[in-house]
Amino acid sequence: MEITGNIATIAFALATLGPGLGIGWLVAKTQESVARQPEVASTLRVNMLIGAAFVELLALIGFIVFILAYFV
Amino acid sequence: MEITGNIATIAFALATLGPGLGIGWLVAKTQESVARQPEVASTLRVNMLIGAAFVELLALIGFIVFILAYFV
Amino acid sequence: MEITGNIATIAFALATLGPGLGIGWLVAKTQESVARQPEVASTLRVNMLIGAAFVELLALIGFIVFILAYFV
Repeated sequence: MEITGNIATIAFALATLGPGLGIGWLVAKTQESVARQPEVASTLRVNMLIGAAFVELLALIGFIVFILAYFV
Repeated sequence: MEITGNIATIAFALATLGPGLGIGWLVAKTQESVARQPEVASTLRVNMLIGAAFVELLALIGFIVFILAYFV
Repeated sequence: MEITGNIATIAFALATLGPGLGIGWLVAKTQESVARQPEVASTLRVNMLIGAAFVELLALIGFIVFILAYFV
């Protein structure tokens, strides 16, 4: 027996690296900005949600890639 | 006997790297912001939970990938 | 004799890298923030515990992955 498995799993793992760091970074700066100008907190939150959705999509497509490569 | 195993285990491990750093970073900035503007602490906590949920999801999908690749 | 073993061990090791740094970073910023605004120390501690729980979970799932891959 030797090392087994499908590299599609590694592919999904790598596909979370950028999004994980990216969402962390944009939420971090959102927080900093809310503390600096609390009166625009709701605008900042909408921007944060839009940004996080865009980035999250990349990782979710990574999951679709895994499903396609592994099962189809 | 030689090195054995399924690389799906390595895949989950890599899938924690980005999210681990990302959540750490966004919570760190939340704390800094709460200390700067304590009156918006509740807004900041809501943003933190939303952000952490977005990022945590990536690693939890990584666990789903491991389960699919290892047992299915 | 040659190198033997299961790569699930290396996988758990990698799974501690991001969370280890992430929790370290968020607790570090918590301390800085408590020192800056001691009157919000309890809010900061709650945020810290929530954040650490999110991140710690990732490494604990890494241990579950090891157990599954090694014994199941």
